[in-house]
Amino acid sequence: MFGLIPKDEKFFIMFKEMTSNIIEGAELLKDMLDSFSDPATSQRRIKDVEHKGDSLTHDIIRKLNKSFVTPFDREDIYALSSALDDILDLIDASAQRVVMYNVEKPTPEAKELAFLILKSCQTIDKTVALLGGKLEPISEYCVEVNALENEADRVCREAISRLFDEEKDPIQLIKWKEIYETLERATDKCEDAANILESVVVKNA
Amino acid sequence: MFGLIPKDEKFFIMFKEMTSNIIEGAELLKDMLDSFSDPATSQRRIKDVEHKGDSLTHDIIRKLNKSFVTPFDREDIYALSSALDDILDLIDASAQRVVMYNVEKPTPEAKELAFLILKSCQTIDKTVALLGGKLEPISEYCVEVNALENEADRVCREAISRLFDEEKDPIQLIKWKEIYETLERATDKCEDAANILESVVVKNA
Amino acid sequence: MFGLIPKDEKFFIMFKEMTSNIIEGAELLKDMLDSFSDPATSQRRIKDVEHKGDSLTHDIIRKLNKSFVTPFDREDIYALSSALDDILDLIDASAQRVVMYNVEKPTPEAKELAFLILKSCQTIDKTVALLGGKLEPISEYCVEVNALENEADRVCREAISRLFDEEKDPIQLIKWKEIYETLERATDKCEDAANILESVVVKNA
Repeated sequence: MFGLIPKDEKFFIMFKEMTSNIIEGAELLKDMLDSFSDPATSQRRIKDVEHKGDSLTHDIIRKLNKSFVTPFDREDIYALSSALDDILDLIDASAQRVVMYNVEKPTPEAKELAFLILKSCQTIDKTVALLGGKLEPISEYCVEVNALENEADRVCREAISRLFDEEKDPIQLIKWKEIYETLERATDKCEDAANILESVVVKNA
Repeated sequence: MFGLIPKDEKFFIMFKEMTSNIIEGAELLKDMLDSFSDPATSQRRIKDVEHKGDSLTHDIIRKLNKSFVTPFDREDIYALSSALDDILDLIDASAQRVVMYNVEKPTPEAKELAFLILKSCQTIDKTVALLGGKLEPISEYCVEVNALENEADRVCREAISRLFDEEKDPIQLIKWKEIYETLERATDKCEDAANILESVVVKNA
Repeated sequence: MFGLIPKDEKFFIMFKEMTSNIIEGAELLKDMLDSFSDPATSQRRIKDVEHKGDSLTHDIIRKLNKSFVTPFDREDIYALSSALDDILDLIDASAQRVVMYNVEKPTPEAKELAFLILKSCQTIDKTVALLGGKLEPISEYCVEVNALENEADRVCREAISRLFDEEKDPIQLIKWKEIYETLERATDKCEDAANILESVVVKNA
């Protein structure tokens, strides 16, 4: 069983650029919450990464609309680029909320979610890299992204549960609930991307 | 006019398994809110039903990806299985929030929404059963699901309106607003499923 | 380069009816917030416009399901009619919240968002009108809708930021946060519609 896409295939290169860019965004978010030395600067750098992601997505869609032959189903290329774009949008939305809500100190759960987002993005990047070679390990990576999403879901649920138990200030509660939910939605979008990648493998097996 | 799918057709059986499983989830949710004797146990049972639903959805998608011929349009099979999966996710999310937010006593509106969810799921189950036979009554059932969604929308809006009028504790307000909205979104997903089913009928009329 | 669709083409006329109806809804919303003389009546009129939009969408989907030949890709017709329907749903949802939450006085940011929604809807209407003629200016209009969405995003973010700085009553904060977010989502849906329209142009260039 050989790869779907020759290594020089343009779609493959474009998807790999997108996942590298997503990793950069996820690393910035994790560093932002871990060090918390200059969140506003981190947020602006994430916004730049997100703009770059928009333009990469736009290039893929343009190329897709102009291509008669594609390395895998058109609707999967479209869905994958949308899901990858959404991941970065949610990383950016998370960072924005941290700054906009004047968070004083990130919680352990927020840091853990940022860690899980980075792990998911790295796994998706490894999966996309395989589109140019052996497809077999892709399913395994997809299972890993699913497990990371389940873990993020658990962390988010427990964080919100603790929030309702401990936080007496409703405005603080609103802020943190939304930060946790936005972080968790980034891992949902990683799972969406993994599901699309798994479909591509099954169809081409 | 005969059915689209012979009765022994695998996709038909799989969809029927899914809707039966959804009904089980909807019944558990309704019982949970009506009796409210042991919500934590009800929630765990709903979670089991939701896991079974995930695995049924996964089976349909796998079969779809491996099938060259399908009883109706591939994208409709995909969209229908996603919509059915979403219904169960929202039933589970509703139950989770009731437990996580330590609800003391379910409101009449929450019980009514659970009743409307169950009715919608039963109607979708009857519709899916017809894919193996006469298609004509399907449109009627779809109209019924739409009416149930409109009713759920009205109940939800009035419940939230009452909440803003009467509930002075903002944290309680946040909890109940989200419970009502999550319940209502389950009926939205029933409507999505009904719309897909109606398309299938029109295309094959 | 000629138009995709002859001027008498039914799909074109139906889409134009939808965008005219959307403009009516957007104008009612803007007037509602600007004058604020009788918000309940404005809201009921917007609801009527939204019902008309539902029925126009339903007609397009029915026609689509029964047509063998379509002026552009079936999935784009489906996606465009859904996006247009969503715009009107969110205009209606915004108006509903203003009434349901007993808003005393609209804020400048809410008025500005309603203005940006109307501008976006007018631009989409101009774009749809071009489907029957020269396609070249469509891309330009799509860029304009994107710019309006960015502007709405900025206004919404600043409004919410100000809300968290100034509003000490958490229940008021919940209400206004949701009104701003609902208004902003209407411009997101305008952007979705513009992106679909741009795809149609690229595919047919």
